[in-house]
Amino acid sequence: MVHLKIRYFIILCLTVFFLWVQFPITSFTDDIDPPRVRARELGIAIGVLPTGKNNAITDIPGVKVGHVTLNEGDSIRTGVTAILPHDDIWKKRLFGAAYTIHGNGEATGIARINQAGWIESPILLTNTLSVGAVHDGVVQYIVDRYPDDNIILPIVAECYDGGLNDISGLHVKSEHAIEAIQNAESGPVHEGCVGGGTGMRCYGFKAGIGTASRVLPKDRGGWTVGVLVNSNGGRRHQLRIDGVPVGKALEDKELKPGRDGSFIIVIATDAPLTHRQLKQLAIRATHGLARTGTPSTDGSGEFVISFSTANVFPRSTDSGTFQIDMVVNWQLSTLFQAVIEATEEAVINSMTMATTTTGRGGRTMHAIPLDQLKQVMKKYGR
Amino acid sequence: MVHLKIRYFIILCLTVFFLWVQFPITSFTDDIDPPRVRARELGIAIGVLPTGKNNAITDIPGVKVGHVTLNEGDSIRTGVTAILPHDDIWKKRLFGAAYTIHGNGEATGIARINQAGWIESPILLTNTLSVGAVHDGVVQYIVDRYPDDNIILPIVAECYDGGLNDISGLHVKSEHAIEAIQNAESGPVHEGCVGGGTGMRCYGFKAGIGTASRVLPKDRGGWTVGVLVNSNGGRRHQLRIDGVPVGKALEDKELKPGRDGSFIIVIATDAPLTHRQLKQLAIRATHGLARTGTPSTDGSGEFVISFSTANVFPRSTDSGTFQIDMVVNWQLSTLFQAVIEATEEAVINSMTMATTTTGRGGRTMHAIPLDQLKQVMKKYGR
Amino acid sequence: MVHLKIRYFIILCLTVFFLWVQFPITSFTDDIDPPRVRARELGIAIGVLPTGKNNAITDIPGVKVGHVTLNEGDSIRTGVTAILPHDDIWKKRLFGAAYTIHGNGEATGIARINQAGWIESPILLTNTLSVGAVHDGVVQYIVDRYPDDNIILPIVAECYDGGLNDISGLHVKSEHAIEAIQNAESGPVHEGCVGGGTGMRCYGFKAGIGTASRVLPKDRGGWTVGVLVNSNGGRRHQLRIDGVPVGKALEDKELKPGRDGSFIIVIATDAPLTHRQLKQLAIRATHGLARTGTPSTDGSGEFVISFSTANVFPRSTDSGTFQIDMVVNWQLSTLFQAVIEATEEAVINSMTMATTTTGRGGRTMHAIPLDQLKQVMKKYGR
Amino acid sequence: MVHLKIRYFIILCLTVFFLWVQFPITSFTDDIDPPRVRARELGIAIGVLPTGKNNAITDIPGVKVGHVTLNEGDSIRTGVTAILPHDDIWKKRLFGAAYTIHGNGEATGIARINQAGWIESPILLTNTLSVGAVHDGVVQYIVDRYPDDNIILPIVAECYDGGLNDISGLHVKSEHAIEAIQNAESGPVHEGCVGGGTGMRCYGFKAGIGTASRVLPKDRGGWTVGVLVNSNGGRRHQLRIDGVPVGKALEDKELKPGRDGSFIIVIATDAPLTHRQLKQLAIRATHGLARTGTPSTDGSGEFVISFSTANVFPRSTDSGTFQIDMVVNWQLSTLFQAVIEATEEAVINSMTMATTTTGRGGRTMHAIPLDQLKQVMKKYGR
Repeated sequence: MVHLKIRYFIILCLTVFFLWVQFPITSFTDDIDPPRVRARELGIAIGVLPTGKNNAITDIPGVKVGHVTLNEGDSIRTGVTAILPHDDIWKKRLFGAAYTIHGNGEATGIARINQAGWIESPILLTNTLSVGAVHDGVVQYIVDRYPDDNIILPIVAECYDGGLNDISGLHVKSEHAIEAIQNAESGPVHEGCVGGGTGMRCYGFKAGIGTASRVLPKDRGGWTVGVLVNSNGGRRHQLRIDGVPVGKALEDKELKPGRDGSFIIVIATDAPLTHRQLKQLAIRATHGLARTGTPSTDGSGEFVISFSTANVFPRSTDSGTFQIDMVVNWQLSTLFQAVIEATEEAVINSMTMATTTTGRGGRTMHAIPLDQLKQVMKKYGR
Repeated sequence: MVHLKIRYFIILCLTVFFLWVQFPITSFTDDIDPPRVRARELGIAIGVLPTGKNNAITDIPGVKVGHVTLNEGDSIRTGVTAILPHDDIWKKRLFGAAYTIHGNGEATGIARINQAGWIESPILLTNTLSVGAVHDGVVQYIVDRYPDDNIILPIVAECYDGGLNDISGLHVKSEHAIEAIQNAESGPVHEGCVGGGTGMRCYGFKAGIGTASRVLPKDRGGWTVGVLVNSNGGRRHQLRIDGVPVGKALEDKELKPGRDGSFIIVIATDAPLTHRQLKQLAIRATHGLARTGTPSTDGSGEFVISFSTANVFPRSTDSGTFQIDMVVNWQLSTLFQAVIEATEEAVINSMTMATTTTGRGGRTMHAIPLDQLKQVMKKYGR
Repeated sequence: MVHLKIRYFIILCLTVFFLWVQFPITSFTDDIDPPRVRARELGIAIGVLPTGKNNAITDIPGVKVGHVTLNEGDSIRTGVTAILPHDDIWKKRLFGAAYTIHGNGEATGIARINQAGWIESPILLTNTLSVGAVHDGVVQYIVDRYPDDNIILPIVAECYDGGLNDISGLHVKSEHAIEAIQNAESGPVHEGCVGGGTGMRCYGFKAGIGTASRVLPKDRGGWTVGVLVNSNGGRRHQLRIDGVPVGKALEDKELKPGRDGSFIIVIATDAPLTHRQLKQLAIRATHGLARTGTPSTDGSGEFVISFSTANVFPRSTDSGTFQIDMVVNWQLSTLFQAVIEATEEAVINSMTMATTTTGRGGRTMHAIPLDQLKQVMKKYGR
Repeated sequence: MVHLKIRYFIILCLTVFFLWVQFPITSFTDDIDPPRVRARELGIAIGVLPTGKNNAITDIPGVKVGHVTLNEGDSIRTGVTAILPHDDIWKKRLFGAAYTIHGNGEATGIARINQAGWIESPILLTNTLSVGAVHDGVVQYIVDRYPDDNIILPIVAECYDGGLNDISGLHVKSEHAIEAIQNAESGPVHEGCVGGGTGMRCYGFKAGIGTASRVLPKDRGGWTVGVLVNSNGGRRHQLRIDGVPVGKALEDKELKPGRDGSFIIVIATDAPLTHRQLKQLAIRATHGLARTGTPSTDGSGEFVISFSTANVFPRSTDSGTFQIDMVVNWQLSTLFQAVIEATEEAVINSMTMATTTTGRGGRTMHAIPLDQLKQVMKKYGR
């Protein structure tokens, strides 16, 4: 009997080992919840333009994204996400623009972007009450790096994560901002409950960071547009995915109407655009958001920041002038289309990649159920 | 008997031949086509809020709409539409606001609306090159009515109808503007190819004037929001109706990409809103438009004018101050929803009510085929 | 001898009587008044930067100004002024921007300028109720010149001249606008009671068109900035000239407070500026105006239009992009200074060059008395 | 004789020693420099309207100002100033507006003011790199006071004091912000080198905090307008005081051109104004600033925040609406005049009340010499 038990035990161990080798550990977790995937893996392909390599804002060469995720104890569900337009954005200023869809929120640094026409700070996303701490972190980062040239006006945009996160605890510190900047990297971007998106929810589901990109046809310039969002707005019944009334179909009668929230949207492109043109791209994020269903409610703080990596804006030149490339205006229309598609898809990715999360006061925010989502899409002819 | 049948057959053939010679083939098509109807009669009901009595901007008491349609000869396909916020708007000033989604067009009088915070002119819609004539007409109308108090700044907004209309012929005269104002009436609104919408097209189909309205639940104030549009923008493949990719489904391979165009949107409400709040309503027209598919291309002139009939703005009072009612900010969210739904539906109505039109140079712009539209909607689960 | 003297005396009396009957009394006043001169000829030199050759907006090569002055009968005191940024501005589009200091007035075409970033229309100045007629004139001019390419959005800005002019008579016709464009020429600019300025008044004195220019030092780029104004705002006691409280010193106790009015300001430069930078120049007209004393009252319509002749904006290129020159941001500060100085001086010129005018209802608006002005300036240390 | 001399010498030494013990060294400086006074005490009375009781922003009942001044060691010359629109502004929201003259700076919270139309945070002024710390302080203050209702978006505006202050040392901490709020009081306001103004300079002289107020005539409503500025911009030669070219007259040939700077301007009134009307008041700060000479250079961050204490904006009401008082538009003109006069005088007070300061790297910024100032004013007829 003992031998038999030992033999069984050895077989069990080998089986476990075999499974462990075959599947990543997350597969086990995934056995319980199905694995989270991006919208395209569910067959949801928004719009008509092709995506970039990683379908991410980092498809624009030089753009990097870094996260610090604070997921501790019962009620710390927050963090910081940093988007770097350039490794040395403080010295290599790029044309930029900012647009406010609805301003019941905060995005520091945007007066400067719109006045100077350039962007000179990394862009940081965090929770509402941590704007000061993150602002301070960016200042410390620049003071440390450039002791003699540091009149930095940091760009920090917030959403409210106080539903799941102990936001009044002020758990984000200035060093988290520095760390997020230092974590920034090219390539695929972590989405869902990471960084500034850790505690966010959207359309009654758990959400957070999402990204997507589009590539224009060669005869329209061949440029790439990338979008990254921190999704935190909308009510369940409003949700539309590729025009399908998903929110109504998945409506949970017990769901209580949540507090209105916000979306922060960052747009990057390698198309040579001026401030004026970038502003128009930023405005088009409205169209993308609108297609996901939100009416941009009274309580929302929806800020859009856009930049182009094509021209570097010098502080000074011998002649006092410099040359830039810029696109002819009519080319903008296709770039608008790219912004709209990528914004819509980034919001969907922020939900399909987020995982069910329990936080402050034992509250649980459920991730959108992917199987049901696929069924609804199918029912509506997709 | 056989001879008789042959004789009848010959008579029938001759009759058909005679009719064929007398009337263009489109007449037949029109005979065959079912009559034009509004979206709701096709089973297309946008959004969640109920409509007002006539599902029109005139559902707001006191608001009137008048048209002058110039449909003459081979190539005059234009006109003027007047929206009267009040019968005596020059003396009974209402809170108003204007917003420019994309400004490649003209809307006179909007600097004044946004500065004074009120609207004091009827709103006139016409073609691009007739802004001056219509402006002049409004001036004449006011000079005639108020000889000693007439520093009027008329509100005239344009779309380009030069595809079907001999726009360079400058066929709209100042008296047409006066006539449109005088024609204005309450009740159901003529839609489609009437007034300023006579020569317009949108998403590759014939379009023009459309309207819709929404009523808020009693516990959200019970107010009504009405929208009227002049639709003249978008490409065929972009068209979405209630989220369904109708444009792609009805795509005509032979269709050449048209010139980009514009949408003019007028919003009326009896909710007591200030200028600031009305501006936010105007911005939400973007969301409604976006859901019909347009990216608001570079060539578009998309202007939104909103007003509230609830408070009358006095020129002067003994105390120098006066009292107004205004809604609490959080109430705005439902009003936003109403604007978005009514804008989307007004655009669809402007197409489903428009009729196939042949104009300048023999060009024909087809109306959206309603049977096919119904089939497409059904295929996508509606 | 005595008889001879008596005979001469009688002849003299008859001559005087004859002249008195033939010419209005104002001719005598004009004979007595010293000739009207520009501010600099009175020793009033605003600011620190040198002027251009003609101290006029036409100091920017390619810029032309034309007037049509309607000075007929007892009460027609109006006209049209045209500023041409380029002889063929419809085809040679220049970067431009528009800014509204206070919007209780009309300037058509400015949404387009700010959206496209370019200027493509001549700029016309006229009275409030003639905006439509002048708009129509520009359309006719372009339709005539470019029968197949004429979706023009004319730029027409107004001030109210109904104090001296029978404005309700609508005496400006579309052909006057065309004529003003055709009259446009380089070189010195007629100032005072000409063109669109014929019936205007400002700070309780007769005013109208004024212009001035500034040249930057070579080490600040060496560019020229020119300004042209149509002055029609401010109360007597507010007037300041180079900081001297001239209005109070010349205050006329019998003067009744006039209606508030407007200033229209056009800025031209050959500095290579983008739309964003030109907008900042336009905003600085506020500073120049402020120094003349006006608080930009509630009734004012103060619009500023700026353009740069340095880059021509193409409609299309093979690559879809093009190259432009632009100044480095820090260079803007000196350009701002130039705008402020030229605006202030142009307003003063519009008064020192205007002549006492009698118009509608026999009302007389006096020109600022130059001798008294010189005395006041001297008293205050200038 | 010698003995006598020695005796006298000893007496002299004792006297000096006695004085040295009795009075701080600065007393000596004060003996040499005349005491700092406000502009009116020098006979400089800007404009035509009378001042309020204290000629300060606190003349509007309920408005309080508090400072924390960090004046330590060789190089800490900074601080925080708090303006409280209401003791409990977080709960008693007032109509407010914000305007950006030139945005090369930071003012957090202004998107919210302009979106909601109300102000709900105290207004804090500090140095450029301490925005984060002060922001954090306001958050802590509100979290502490309202543990369950604290989605605060603090208003923090900055100027750069790095000339005299070790700004990179980040000496302002969040507790200083809390302390400044707690220090706030009614009555006369400390001006010059205090609070957020400790290290500021303007027009080549030491500057800092300044304030002034104006009272309207009874027949224009009788309201009070108060302005507080933190002055930190302009070059010496640009300075004008009441129109007198003081800067040129006091020009110091050895003076090196300083870095461009900023002005932060806060406007309070008890006139019942809406957001739209308050925005127009904020814009008029431009006129006041312009009269002091600055062209609002490229490097400047000039933000204006205005609020009215007359109406309290409720979060919610049973009916969803509420009543407010508002002034008729034409009344605005006199309020504009009040803003312009008070802004100009507040800037002058910020200089005449500031004292010569030595800071970082032993740099000294001299206060404007009052005797010379009086002489210059006299020379120019004042």
